[in-house]
Amino acid sequence: MLTERPGVFSGHPKEECGVFGVFGHPEAATLTHYALLTLQHRGQESAGIAVAGEREILHHKGMGLVGEVFGERVLKELSGRAAIGHVRYSTTGSSLAVNAQPLVFRHRLGALALGHNGNLVNAHLLRNRLEAEGSIFQTSLDTEVLAHLVARSKEPTLEKALTEALQQIQGGYAFVLLTERSLLGLRDPYGIRPLALGRLKGAYLLASESCAFDSLGGRFIREIEPGEMVVIDGAGIRSFQALPVAGRALCLFEFIYFARPDSLLNGLSVHSVRKELGRILAQEAPAAADLVIGVPDSSLSAAAGYAEELDLPYEIGLVKNRYVGRTFIQPNEKLRNLAVRLKLNALRKVVEGQRVVLVDDSIVRGTTSRHIIRLLRQAGAKKIHLRISSAPYRFPCYYGIDTSVISELIASQKSVEDIRAEVGADSLAYPSLEGMLRAAGGRERGYCLSCFTGTYHVPVPDGAGKLVLEEK
Amino acid sequence: MLTERPGVFSGHPKEECGVFGVFGHPEAATLTHYALLTLQHRGQESAGIAVAGEREILHHKGMGLVGEVFGERVLKELSGRAAIGHVRYSTTGSSLAVNAQPLVFRHRLGALALGHNGNLVNAHLLRNRLEAEGSIFQTSLDTEVLAHLVARSKEPTLEKALTEALQQIQGGYAFVLLTERSLLGLRDPYGIRPLALGRLKGAYLLASESCAFDSLGGRFIREIEPGEMVVIDGAGIRSFQALPVAGRALCLFEFIYFARPDSLLNGLSVHSVRKELGRILAQEAPAAADLVIGVPDSSLSAAAGYAEELDLPYEIGLVKNRYVGRTFIQPNEKLRNLAVRLKLNALRKVVEGQRVVLVDDSIVRGTTSRHIIRLLRQAGAKKIHLRISSAPYRFPCYYGIDTSVISELIASQKSVEDIRAEVGADSLAYPSLEGMLRAAGGRERGYCLSCFTGTYHVPVPDGAGKLVLEEK
Amino acid sequence: MLTERPGVFSGHPKEECGVFGVFGHPEAATLTHYALLTLQHRGQESAGIAVAGEREILHHKGMGLVGEVFGERVLKELSGRAAIGHVRYSTTGSSLAVNAQPLVFRHRLGALALGHNGNLVNAHLLRNRLEAEGSIFQTSLDTEVLAHLVARSKEPTLEKALTEALQQIQGGYAFVLLTERSLLGLRDPYGIRPLALGRLKGAYLLASESCAFDSLGGRFIREIEPGEMVVIDGAGIRSFQALPVAGRALCLFEFIYFARPDSLLNGLSVHSVRKELGRILAQEAPAAADLVIGVPDSSLSAAAGYAEELDLPYEIGLVKNRYVGRTFIQPNEKLRNLAVRLKLNALRKVVEGQRVVLVDDSIVRGTTSRHIIRLLRQAGAKKIHLRISSAPYRFPCYYGIDTSVISELIASQKSVEDIRAEVGADSLAYPSLEGMLRAAGGRERGYCLSCFTGTYHVPVPDGAGKLVLEEK
Amino acid sequence: MLTERPGVFSGHPKEECGVFGVFGHPEAATLTHYALLTLQHRGQESAGIAVAGEREILHHKGMGLVGEVFGERVLKELSGRAAIGHVRYSTTGSSLAVNAQPLVFRHRLGALALGHNGNLVNAHLLRNRLEAEGSIFQTSLDTEVLAHLVARSKEPTLEKALTEALQQIQGGYAFVLLTERSLLGLRDPYGIRPLALGRLKGAYLLASESCAFDSLGGRFIREIEPGEMVVIDGAGIRSFQALPVAGRALCLFEFIYFARPDSLLNGLSVHSVRKELGRILAQEAPAAADLVIGVPDSSLSAAAGYAEELDLPYEIGLVKNRYVGRTFIQPNEKLRNLAVRLKLNALRKVVEGQRVVLVDDSIVRGTTSRHIIRLLRQAGAKKIHLRISSAPYRFPCYYGIDTSVISELIASQKSVEDIRAEVGADSLAYPSLEGMLRAAGGRERGYCLSCFTGTYHVPVPDGAGKLVLEEK
Repeated sequence: MLTERPGVFSGHPKEECGVFGVFGHPEAATLTHYALLTLQHRGQESAGIAVAGEREILHHKGMGLVGEVFGERVLKELSGRAAIGHVRYSTTGSSLAVNAQPLVFRHRLGALALGHNGNLVNAHLLRNRLEAEGSIFQTSLDTEVLAHLVARSKEPTLEKALTEALQQIQGGYAFVLLTERSLLGLRDPYGIRPLALGRLKGAYLLASESCAFDSLGGRFIREIEPGEMVVIDGAGIRSFQALPVAGRALCLFEFIYFARPDSLLNGLSVHSVRKELGRILAQEAPAAADLVIGVPDSSLSAAAGYAEELDLPYEIGLVKNRYVGRTFIQPNEKLRNLAVRLKLNALRKVVEGQRVVLVDDSIVRGTTSRHIIRLLRQAGAKKIHLRISSAPYRFPCYYGIDTSVISELIASQKSVEDIRAEVGADSLAYPSLEGMLRAAGGRERGYCLSCFTGTYHVPVPDGAGKLVLEEK
Repeated sequence: MLTERPGVFSGHPKEECGVFGVFGHPEAATLTHYALLTLQHRGQESAGIAVAGEREILHHKGMGLVGEVFGERVLKELSGRAAIGHVRYSTTGSSLAVNAQPLVFRHRLGALALGHNGNLVNAHLLRNRLEAEGSIFQTSLDTEVLAHLVARSKEPTLEKALTEALQQIQGGYAFVLLTERSLLGLRDPYGIRPLALGRLKGAYLLASESCAFDSLGGRFIREIEPGEMVVIDGAGIRSFQALPVAGRALCLFEFIYFARPDSLLNGLSVHSVRKELGRILAQEAPAAADLVIGVPDSSLSAAAGYAEELDLPYEIGLVKNRYVGRTFIQPNEKLRNLAVRLKLNALRKVVEGQRVVLVDDSIVRGTTSRHIIRLLRQAGAKKIHLRISSAPYRFPCYYGIDTSVISELIASQKSVEDIRAEVGADSLAYPSLEGMLRAAGGRERGYCLSCFTGTYHVPVPDGAGKLVLEEK
Repeated sequence: MLTERPGVFSGHPKEECGVFGVFGHPEAATLTHYALLTLQHRGQESAGIAVAGEREILHHKGMGLVGEVFGERVLKELSGRAAIGHVRYSTTGSSLAVNAQPLVFRHRLGALALGHNGNLVNAHLLRNRLEAEGSIFQTSLDTEVLAHLVARSKEPTLEKALTEALQQIQGGYAFVLLTERSLLGLRDPYGIRPLALGRLKGAYLLASESCAFDSLGGRFIREIEPGEMVVIDGAGIRSFQALPVAGRALCLFEFIYFARPDSLLNGLSVHSVRKELGRILAQEAPAAADLVIGVPDSSLSAAAGYAEELDLPYEIGLVKNRYVGRTFIQPNEKLRNLAVRLKLNALRKVVEGQRVVLVDDSIVRGTTSRHIIRLLRQAGAKKIHLRISSAPYRFPCYYGIDTSVISELIASQKSVEDIRAEVGADSLAYPSLEGMLRAAGGRERGYCLSCFTGTYHVPVPDGAGKLVLEEK
Repeated sequence: MLTERPGVFSGHPKEECGVFGVFGHPEAATLTHYALLTLQHRGQESAGIAVAGEREILHHKGMGLVGEVFGERVLKELSGRAAIGHVRYSTTGSSLAVNAQPLVFRHRLGALALGHNGNLVNAHLLRNRLEAEGSIFQTSLDTEVLAHLVARSKEPTLEKALTEALQQIQGGYAFVLLTERSLLGLRDPYGIRPLALGRLKGAYLLASESCAFDSLGGRFIREIEPGEMVVIDGAGIRSFQALPVAGRALCLFEFIYFARPDSLLNGLSVHSVRKELGRILAQEAPAAADLVIGVPDSSLSAAAGYAEELDLPYEIGLVKNRYVGRTFIQPNEKLRNLAVRLKLNALRKVVEGQRVVLVDDSIVRGTTSRHIIRLLRQAGAKKIHLRISSAPYRFPCYYGIDTSVISELIASQKSVEDIRAEVGADSLAYPSLEGMLRAAGGRERGYCLSCFTGTYHVPVPDGAGKLVLEEK
């Protein structure tokens, strides 16, 4: 929670993408730009917009935040009534990176722009096959694999070609696609990655999260179903079951950390689920404490729930600096320990002499927790009970979250007691799987728990792990 | 609270400056850079650092955020063991603005750099006199007036020349000054603007707020006293009473809005005072409601206090977008109403069908409150009881806060009932002056209440109002 | 000659590219960067470098001049012992343009980077076929067609796959190619576009012009032959006749305008050929004049030759502003006529009252000539005899020069006398084709004269003209 | 001649400034911007424009080329009918430099903007006195001294105050000044630095060089006389002899190197004088050679004159790269010898086996000459006779040219024969002082020869040399 921005430090899993689409609005690119600002928390490394112009698909993309990549002049050039947009979290720090989306290309059926959130677990296999058949790859995006499959299909329409292509890919994904005359949205057959449908007056909207609709003054209609494809064009909206539903397995981490608290997922408010996670955690692992604090911003809802459940004071114990971002100059060796202090500060008057419950949403490597606990100790906290609002993160995700290799996941290497000792807490507790599911409306709503259980809905071919790490 | 960044919109009074100084550290400029990041909430329009180099005072300043103005290359050039820094809130949107600080100049006693937080109410009179005597002015900073007074003094030392100059200026101010061999700090005889002293190992620190010490791993020593001048050089630290103490009148708005919650002022935690303001407001103006929400980020502490006092649920009802900043492209006429929505969103699941207490820290013009209340209504709130954690803001500040002219201050034009109607709340209440003072430790600690009462400690000459508006 | 930079104005045909390659030097990217600076006159719109790194091909490219696209940090990341580079002249002014080179991609035989100077006349046909077969196109570069053909070949080695691909493409081209382990250079079977081989100590170099070798302290070895492919790797250099020689037809405009005067082409010094063009023009079309001036910079050599032949004084009559570049703010309507004056000024003291021979290298649309003649008249020139050092430019080039459509070529629409009248000269003359060839060492050396004669070596399919205009 | 841009290398003395002014044109700032582009050769380190707006003087200035400092948005803000502009050559490479002009300030008589070309030899003395009297200095510009003197004068009008101030300063200077209602121009009593008056329709123009008038389509009227002050306002133009004429001593280096060849100075064409310098040099120091070449661009006129006089072929023997500018990345140690090669290349086909006369305009340190001669030798030149078109540069200039300290001027340390040996020429010759004066229209026209003779018109106080080096 120290930061979601690369180049600084982070104790979180990283989401790679947010997608958005609009059809039927004279200011399509400008709306997309605003929607990407709203989805910026899902990816800060690159941003891109493609628009269906008069005669062709125009696009612009670049490294950096939405506000850095798009200026008024560029937006003005991106004139058209339909557009898609994308923000992305890159794992590479290189200034040479070229993997921004949307991916825009021409093929036998015309021009196509593609924005993708998720990960295709068999991308490397398909890529090898496609290369053997003579395809060239200009990016390391797994999205490019889908482009080739669509182009190589013999089907006469884009919908059919896409369906044929989708039958070959496996993984968790939500796609937005733009042609010269239509906007399409798709979700994988488990619905692992989210995608919602909205309206703004006469226009249709698609977005990874419903908060993007709110920010435009639009309205949430419904979530795209697992395996569903929607096609929006001049004639209105049509829906297909492109792939048979394989189950429902929404990524639970969307609730735990990724999504904005004001978004709706699986029909539930993200904030409410977080608060409920806190409550259930309090029931399962109460602590004898004087007050409860959360790590800003993502753990505040859970901390409030924890406090409410035990009728403990909910306090602001940590302050986050909003101005330490990507352009932050790293302290040199001598000043290295400043990095955490610049980002977070403890409120001495709040925690001094107190028994504190510290709520955080997850522990990936453990280093961030150790830093925060040290800050609180230096500020005089007497006891620190660390409560994590999700179960131990033990297995890598292959469906679109970029975590570390398994050897870096502290929970897959150590016991809870060992983790507690390593981060320096007086006690440490996680919720049960059942507790988490209950907070998220019950198992029957359908969630992906692979990173907690190691059981994967979509089989993961050998080598997929490597792709996950290098090519997100 | 919508934003502290210019170019977007804001319902807040604006603070113009944060200052920092360090003496006796080999990485003086780098520490100053980090401290300015921590003080960035006090001013986002320009930033500057001056450093006492081997043979001269070097400086760099520019328009923009600290992270935009300073890169590694510039910091490397700013080599020296003592430095001062400044962040500033400008009232001009012009790209031609040249009023960044520190002001660096040479005079008969050598080189001097000056960083200033506050406002000199007789600056225009002194300036007229100085111009008549042959001085030239290269900026519109009132700081430049002090520079001339120091230069024209016949006193043999800087301390004495400064003291003589200070006797001529009136207003609220905190100054940090850097010579080739020393660092000085000063506070006006009422202590209207804050300034604190800290240490980092062998080095001395000065800062507008103590949170800057924490972020460097340093420690807070004490606040500079009203009228006190501290001089730090190779021989250590000395303190003078440069001007007789005129009273104690710390700006109460530092507690209400400006300061970071983790800072200490008048010996009190800003967060704790805010929470207490909420409690007292709850005692004075309870509301029959289902839950309490605050406007992020500055009103969250007061909202928590309000909720605690009445044993109501404290909820997160509004989400703020952290990525809508200065580079934000303003929506055109057609999309204008998006500006608020992009910055803030209401949590429908939290407020729908509920009787909501909305806590905000202040109302300046009233437009922002109206927007937020509309957002909450659209999200389904049944009742909205607006509670402001400070008394009605009715008179302009002449001591360093940039507000509107009196005709734009809604509380100086309208009754509480009329304001309620205009912003669309079901009820509206402010705390009493006594209540506010009690929350801030009692009247005896000494506070400036001019903006609430219209009674000014330092007499304000005619024409000062204009200066306030144009030259901050 | 007014300028080679877009955004200003130009009376010249535009060359689209310069290419460079190096193999076997520890500072491959840095050398390439310097070589591109030397080749910058061949293209100012975009620049790119690809380098064969330890484990993959890294690249960086962007819009703008070499010095704008590459900084020290990027060059440092481009670490490796082999590299290729490219500068490009774009016909689009859009800030959305994405067609910078080298094109870097992976295919079944590994990674490949491609830099291309020239134009493939059947690219649109091949592209249609490839799209029908399922290829996707991410740029509008004809270079991408070659990439697909190589990838789709079943040949077991890159050399063979390339040879097979080349058999399908038609046009004028010079390619540099980089794999993880080798550097390749290729020239079309007529040798229309230039490519030379050089050495720098142990390293091999390839460049569009030999001046790039000089700038690195390297040495010119020889020109790549028509249809020749050279392969440079750890084992040294090998040469193949990839395609049978179809003739020798070096673009004569390389001598007339594109190449730097210090380059060698077809074994001849560009400067010497230009001077000879001036001499022959003087023999064929002498003028009764007091002095000779050239349009800077490209026509100075020819002007000197013209003057020498007739024993007339060679004078500097026009001064060019070196600082009016791409970032030049266009004068508004009211100030529009300033554009030429800012770029060029006449030397009144030189031309006043004189009969002037004005030598320019070509006339494309005629507007620039008209402007210059007006400048000279205003500066007092009594007579202006315009002498063009190349024959009338009457037909579009399909082999890599971006000219206008035929309807905009003044010489294809009007007689010499009509052109004279339109540009306002007192007389106008061009050299004969035979004269031009004599200046360039004789017809037997082999030159492409298509733009003068309309006879094309490589047949141009329908539709190629459009490609030339849109996709260079 | 290698380059006039800092950060690369240069064998030239450096001029510090170009100034421009316009009164009575609705696009005053835009015209000034274009005029500065035309004067850019006089200074590339900073640029600035001040404009007399509706209610105040607005200004913008920054480090870099005119095209980098000014964009359309800034020019649009600089709205007004009168403006001055300035380009400056800085001797510091620091990114912290703050000495851009115009200097804009307010004083008792209103607002004033000042642009200055030249150097005040007693600035340090005046500055000490002013500081002792209580003035503060915010820049290290000697221009600031004049501002203080004007402000401290008791005279009732600006003209009189300026005249009083001028009586105290000594040196070579041309000033343009802008008030809210008028434009003024001034030249020192010897006329050391140039300043000309022009017209553009109803508007008046002032410029360091007449080429700026040409570039705007305006016309040259006359040069401002030594000691003359012109005042242009709504009532027209008035002229005063502000200071008695002390003689005529125009800087001869304006002809030799600084001015553009298309400018007029002392009634003479710069190009014509350069050519005449070449002729006279040929008479005084002929060489047995096959051809004559000049170092581009500044020595081409002299080379042409030399060739004509001896009836030798004038050739293009060196090609200059126009794209190696300030952003040029310096080669590292290993590649250091590339710096000259990237900037200049020799034409082997021209010089190989030939006896070459190489004409350059001056030798400051000798390193550049040595590099060029080495280039020519490597290109096969058999003999190299170096001819310099000005007399040996032996003494520092105190009137506005930034040269080295005397110990770095090779001609003040070594004999002609020793210099010849050091630069590696086969022979070396300079013109006589008498010859130079003859070329510039005769001694009676009045020239400053201090840098050749060490005799200074304006006495140079102790310490002035230091100022010259540090504060230009």
